[in-house]
Amino acid sequence: MTKPRLKIIPLGGLSEIGKNMMAMECENDIIVIDVGLMFPGEEMLGIDLVIPDISYLLERREKIRGIVITHGHEDHIGALPYLLPQLDVPVYSTRLTQGLISVKLKERKALAGAKLKVVPFGGQVTLGRFRVEFFPVCHSIPDAAGLIIHTPVGTIVHSGDFKLDYTPVDGKPTDLSRLAQLGAQGVLLLLSDSTYAELPGYTPSERVVGETLDRVMAEAPGRVIVTTFSSLVSRIQQVIDAAAKHQRRVFIVGRSMTDIVRMTLELGYLKAPDGILARLDELKGMPHNRVVFITTGSQGEPTSALVRIANRDHRQVHILRGDTVVLSATPIPGNEAVINRTVDNLFKQGAQVLYAKVAQVHVHGHGSQEELKLLLNLVKPRFFIPIHGEYRHLSLHAKLAQSVGIPKENIFVLEDGDVFELSPQAGKITGKVSSGNVYVDGLSVGDVGSVVLRNRRMLSRDGIVVVIITVNRQTGKLVGRPDIVSRGFVDTREAKDMIEESRDVVARALDHSGVRPAEWGFINTKVRDVLNRFYYEQTKRRPMILPVMVKV
Amino acid sequence: MTKPRLKIIPLGGLSEIGKNMMAMECENDIIVIDVGLMFPGEEMLGIDLVIPDISYLLERREKIRGIVITHGHEDHIGALPYLLPQLDVPVYSTRLTQGLISVKLKERKALAGAKLKVVPFGGQVTLGRFRVEFFPVCHSIPDAAGLIIHTPVGTIVHSGDFKLDYTPVDGKPTDLSRLAQLGAQGVLLLLSDSTYAELPGYTPSERVVGETLDRVMAEAPGRVIVTTFSSLVSRIQQVIDAAAKHQRRVFIVGRSMTDIVRMTLELGYLKAPDGILARLDELKGMPHNRVVFITTGSQGEPTSALVRIANRDHRQVHILRGDTVVLSATPIPGNEAVINRTVDNLFKQGAQVLYAKVAQVHVHGHGSQEELKLLLNLVKPRFFIPIHGEYRHLSLHAKLAQSVGIPKENIFVLEDGDVFELSPQAGKITGKVSSGNVYVDGLSVGDVGSVVLRNRRMLSRDGIVVVIITVNRQTGKLVGRPDIVSRGFVDTREAKDMIEESRDVVARALDHSGVRPAEWGFINTKVRDVLNRFYYEQTKRRPMILPVMVKV
Repeated sequence: MTKPRLKIIPLGGLSEIGKNMMAMECENDIIVIDVGLMFPGEEMLGIDLVIPDISYLLERREKIRGIVITHGHEDHIGALPYLLPQLDVPVYSTRLTQGLISVKLKERKALAGAKLKVVPFGGQVTLGRFRVEFFPVCHSIPDAAGLIIHTPVGTIVHSGDFKLDYTPVDGKPTDLSRLAQLGAQGVLLLLSDSTYAELPGYTPSERVVGETLDRVMAEAPGRVIVTTFSSLVSRIQQVIDAAAKHQRRVFIVGRSMTDIVRMTLELGYLKAPDGILARLDELKGMPHNRVVFITTGSQGEPTSALVRIANRDHRQVHILRGDTVVLSATPIPGNEAVINRTVDNLFKQGAQVLYAKVAQVHVHGHGSQEELKLLLNLVKPRFFIPIHGEYRHLSLHAKLAQSVGIPKENIFVLEDGDVFELSPQAGKITGKVSSGNVYVDGLSVGDVGSVVLRNRRMLSRDGIVVVIITVNRQTGKLVGRPDIVSRGFVDTREAKDMIEESRDVVARALDHSGVRPAEWGFINTKVRDVLNRFYYEQTKRRPMILPVMVKV
Repeated sequence: MTKPRLKIIPLGGLSEIGKNMMAMECENDIIVIDVGLMFPGEEMLGIDLVIPDISYLLERREKIRGIVITHGHEDHIGALPYLLPQLDVPVYSTRLTQGLISVKLKERKALAGAKLKVVPFGGQVTLGRFRVEFFPVCHSIPDAAGLIIHTPVGTIVHSGDFKLDYTPVDGKPTDLSRLAQLGAQGVLLLLSDSTYAELPGYTPSERVVGETLDRVMAEAPGRVIVTTFSSLVSRIQQVIDAAAKHQRRVFIVGRSMTDIVRMTLELGYLKAPDGILARLDELKGMPHNRVVFITTGSQGEPTSALVRIANRDHRQVHILRGDTVVLSATPIPGNEAVINRTVDNLFKQGAQVLYAKVAQVHVHGHGSQEELKLLLNLVKPRFFIPIHGEYRHLSLHAKLAQSVGIPKENIFVLEDGDVFELSPQAGKITGKVSSGNVYVDGLSVGDVGSVVLRNRRMLSRDGIVVVIITVNRQTGKLVGRPDIVSRGFVDTREAKDMIEESRDVVARALDHSGVRPAEWGFINTKVRDVLNRFYYEQTKRRPMILPVMVKV
């Protein structure tokens, strides 16, 4: 008799941060955990979004019993509009997460036909040979869940994104007693969040930010403008609470902030005392020390309210001397430059600006080293796989696990696409499936590949030179001089003589060889060679050279 | 009788970090302080370097008495090869700084004719109505200087880049007693480094890093690879000292590291016990715990030794399991992603990696808030201008100055190009001169302007579509169908049908209007309009559309 074997296949989130997605497979059943997206890196020119490659799942579509979502952040739900229609299975999540998924699907016209199921904390759902239980974890969004997955091979704990906060704003700390209970019963495998495995100590409680906001509202001589992630509902709650305490009214600015405030008020995740929320048309004549704005724009997004305000480009809100701006967020890597520019612009207009480097205005949503160790200690897993992080985060988390006593040979640092097989006694990597980045650019998903990106990269560096070679169809002879047009290469007025000279260079090169349509490949290479050399000598630049033949 | 007036004109370093340069003018004399470069931001596509705009100085060339350089970092000397030949005046600096300037000038073939003068600490040089004295400051390069500038209007103190370190590795702390003495005598104006004005407290002493390196050399089971800035000579000294203590030999890897070690050994800035430095061909057979490498690559530069090692692409050095890699540097903003990738690759090959986030392996070279306050307190200037920083750093530094008692109206936050006039009684901004970024791209300086960059930006996002319209010269009629070639826009095989269809779109549009060479402007616009619309509908992308007319 063969024992059941479990396969764990990370499809995203373990090679780069973001785009979290994982498959678990046991005999004829597959479940999928999270379907996230990633925002493009600097080198992915012109790309709008990056989603996981799910070819492994598409080949086994009939085995998939459902998708389980841990929480409503983009890097856990954002690829659903693109991938759910292809997979067409039920999606299980907590209530707020479901609300956020509906909004996403609706935006992309993918809501029709979607089977979205709400699972309460402590509730269980059976998906083939998997039984999945949701437990509450603290994170920077309400209703975030970790998963307890009962499988024929043993119990698996998946932390989701989590931190420990004994005094969270929404009153739902990570359920440590349930985890301790499981630890006592025996857990086969822990999968745990590595995002902040580099940071020693504990992540401070959200309360610390509450105290700063309280002080700011009390002491600011004028208006207070607070910017944060729209999904960071607990922060919005803290702003409202501090405003209420200091008799300030709250103005919500920006579309996504307005939408999420409305939705979370309706669902009961956000509480606002009567009359505290105000409309912008009530602003006129209000004393400045009675006003708080909550806006989007903490990442320097060019169309966000805060950036428009900083650029004096917002219709309704302008910076006044004496305003205090609070950036209650940390920069997502890659956004530092645009955020710095926004802060500079706010300072230039006379605002006082508080941001993470200079004041305790933000705490992040992931556990630091001591919290990670605590989780390992409570759950006492036999095997451990660090998830959610780049290789260095996973490596450091693996070392933490060793330091609390998990044997080195029971710890596995995986990469996306690895097929990890686990029995109650042992685990090993047994294969590799297609994984990696699928690019969304405009309407199309996946058509932008390495060739298009390589071309964009080349174009971005030194521009393009188009060479038009007109050839007589009958004789194969050149008609007139080659034409040359460039963009992004040189200042076309200043470099006029050089461009003229390069036309002669091409003409001379072709004179020797003669032109025949049949030899186009040869001509093409020759034109590129002589121009590459000529332009590099003249400018030390290497534009893309694109010869085009016109037959007349 | 009119009193002499002093003009201070920052030409770089106050709107963006880097590219430090300032002019001081009194009657018929101008001195220039620092001539730095800046590395291009992400949005400056294809640009190699950025240097200051010196048109103000070129118009007053006969007034310039000399250039004074505070220290040998790129952001203070890097633009000299481009600008010194145009200005052609003597350059004053300390000895090591002069050595580094020679190297830079030689690389760019600008050394011939350069008048480089060494000034010792405590030494003075008279430049027209200015008398300039150099005093030692602690910074992340030896021989860094601050300036005391005696002018007819009063004494000015320029901090250079500085921090306070009472136990510096090279034994030369910032000369506080000279500054206290000046403070007692009366200082008109302090110009002080704002780079780290965001950080509370004190910058730790270099000794902290020495202790970490000592522990690493003692405890590392195998070889140790330390990466740092090649100009951070005190760090190289610390590595050599720690290696010597633990009987390890030191291998220098990478061209720029080798060059600087040779030069600083010769000049006496670096000291190595006999026999400690080894050649790579001596590596074979050495026990791993007797080996230390010092390499370049702390910023993830693609051709640096460390990045080649991380990519298994170095001829002589490969990572072995048990190696410890120390990144003794912090990322310069913008380099985070490539550095992270390098760290990930080192971890993947089994190295233990120590970097600033996880260990005390680096301290930076600029003073934090308490140090800035201490300098203000000692110098007791009547007027204060924060320098070296972006607007938020300057604003925060201005607030620090207020907090130690400098009246708000005596503090001036300037931007590049501001003309600031100062008398013994008052200062004000009286004008603006041309300043900003001059781009170096390949061989040319300044020819890449906003049009070329805008084109590169557009090309980088959605690529280009070239439309070739062949027209009979006599009749003005279209010859054949328009040809269309694209790069970086879509996958040309997958989108073949769409591209074909777009040829018809152009043909139809031109059919209606007829083509006459005289109407090319009109045709050009029309082709771009119809294709823009067509492609956007089909793809939601906006490639650059470049119509080219061929007359036959």
